[in-house]
Amino acid sequence: MEEIILAVDLGGTNVRIATVNPQGKMLGKLSFPTEVSRGRERVVEDILSRIQGFLHGFPSGEFEVIGGGFGIPGAIALDRGIISQSPNFPGWEDFDIRSRLQKGLRMPIFIENDANAFSLGEGWLGAARGVKDFCCLTLGTGVGGGIVLNGDIWHGTEGKAGEIGHMVIAVDGPPCHCGSRGCLEVFASGSAIRRMAIEAIEGGERTELVERCGDEIKDITAKTVSESARGGDRLSRRVFQQMGMYLGVGLVNLVNLLNVQLMIIGGQVSEAWDLFIDSVREELEKRTVGSLGKGVRVEKARCGDDAGILGAAYLVKREFEKHKRRR
Amino acid sequence: MEEIILAVDLGGTNVRIATVNPQGKMLGKLSFPTEVSRGRERVVEDILSRIQGFLHGFPSGEFEVIGGGFGIPGAIALDRGIISQSPNFPGWEDFDIRSRLQKGLRMPIFIENDANAFSLGEGWLGAARGVKDFCCLTLGTGVGGGIVLNGDIWHGTEGKAGEIGHMVIAVDGPPCHCGSRGCLEVFASGSAIRRMAIEAIEGGERTELVERCGDEIKDITAKTVSESARGGDRLSRRVFQQMGMYLGVGLVNLVNLLNVQLMIIGGQVSEAWDLFIDSVREELEKRTVGSLGKGVRVEKARCGDDAGILGAAYLVKREFEKHKRRR
Repeated sequence: MEEIILAVDLGGTNVRIATVNPQGKMLGKLSFPTEVSRGRERVVEDILSRIQGFLHGFPSGEFEVIGGGFGIPGAIALDRGIISQSPNFPGWEDFDIRSRLQKGLRMPIFIENDANAFSLGEGWLGAARGVKDFCCLTLGTGVGGGIVLNGDIWHGTEGKAGEIGHMVIAVDGPPCHCGSRGCLEVFASGSAIRRMAIEAIEGGERTELVERCGDEIKDITAKTVSESARGGDRLSRRVFQQMGMYLGVGLVNLVNLLNVQLMIIGGQVSEAWDLFIDSVREELEKRTVGSLGKGVRVEKARCGDDAGILGAAYLVKREFEKHKRRR
Repeated sequence: MEEIILAVDLGGTNVRIATVNPQGKMLGKLSFPTEVSRGRERVVEDILSRIQGFLHGFPSGEFEVIGGGFGIPGAIALDRGIISQSPNFPGWEDFDIRSRLQKGLRMPIFIENDANAFSLGEGWLGAARGVKDFCCLTLGTGVGGGIVLNGDIWHGTEGKAGEIGHMVIAVDGPPCHCGSRGCLEVFASGSAIRRMAIEAIEGGERTELVERCGDEIKDITAKTVSESARGGDRLSRRVFQQMGMYLGVGLVNLVNLLNVQLMIIGGQVSEAWDLFIDSVREELEKRTVGSLGKGVRVEKARCGDDAGILGAAYLVKREFEKHKRRR
């Protein structure tokens, strides 16, 4: 009988389900829209029945599902298995999701914040394989983060650590939806790239970006800016350089505070890697204290969309290996 | 026979020597100027002979010195016992200080960065007693820092972590001597207070501060600004509020990244506590993500000038207790 792990990445847009073996091989995958607007109960019911259907493909004579790992957006109170803060899933606060999943699926369930799961995935099978101390940043609509110290997520006193996107790097900078100003997220996310491009256009600068979007400034996205930059558009190129500079300052802070030597950058915006990475490295070189920046590597995440799922699977794998060692 | 610990705080201005018992009681103290300019060899010789003289007061029939703990400015490569970076002690880089002290004093020697020693002292007997996760900031000419996670200093991969003073909070801010710009140190140190006051005066603002310094703007110090603020001077009060705001932003970043719930503020500038603490707390409330700021306490360091010495003693105490448990 083959031992397998159920791994779930519960995203704001899609839920992704997979079965993964303890070596990290994905045996099956399923993805469907989350439909958060239908309310917590319906979403959970839906996920449970989808998982049950999906697991029928792994008959119990041949496979043994040893546990389920879930990556979930928001702050997780790990000791109690509840979601303590959930900006993207209204109404999920204080929800004892672990018990609910455990009851519905009749298997041990392990949960973790999604950006932390991403970091564990990259640590297990991606760009941080074998590295004990590193930070992970996911650049999407916002900026997610995970801090790994001594081979494990640093959770902090309440399990809410790792808000790398809300590190203030410009005290009087543009407002952030979190209530602060000048957070890294305001400068190094997909929305930031869009904002910076639109601001430059409104400032009167010429660019082929507007034409590319059918003269509709509001249709500009990080993706169109990156396409335009690759086509040689100066404004678009500069926006990515700026974004790289700010991202670099964020990394400088992490290096100065934590003396970690590996930074992993993932998320959709990281696809534009070559458009911003030189600016990131330049800032690291210029701004870190003494020789702190010298040993630092900045690398692109390697597990792509699967990092979160693999990290969720790793939660289960790790726990089972601990038990095996104890026996 | 009473077991005692030799504890030394090697500062840029003064060397402070003490004997401390394992309960943290100071039995004797000695302080003398460092005279860095005389060169490393002379300084080390001087310290060794002063220590030997000092220890004569604790005769070997009555006392047993179980080891020596040293707090030293700069980055310490703990595994090798050397100073790997030493901005305030030119020529001390790559110096195997631990071996040298061990040979000269014939006892086990433990070394640590001075700000880290300060943090350990506050953790052992000061404001962070019994707290596992906290950050310590010392506001002096510059801003020193120590990050304590799970009850121990977080050293990072090379032992250089905790550069809290060089966290960038204003990407385009004033230049910092470290080569970066807008570091916390540029806004929340004694030199920062002086700079902000002088800038405001040069901007034409009225203040009794100038008169207090005998009309010599260059004689303004953080101390005169604080005296002036206590006398009701508006400019001086505002400078401390600004400094508190920036310090608050620095703490926000530490809280958002590490989810620690206790921040200890020490150093000479912290004497002006009531002039800046409200601004610090206001910023923490306004800017931390979600409810992260709610549980955070900001407290004044309690061991005063002795924190570094007590922390140095703690290095020895901790090691000996480990050994005792092993026996």
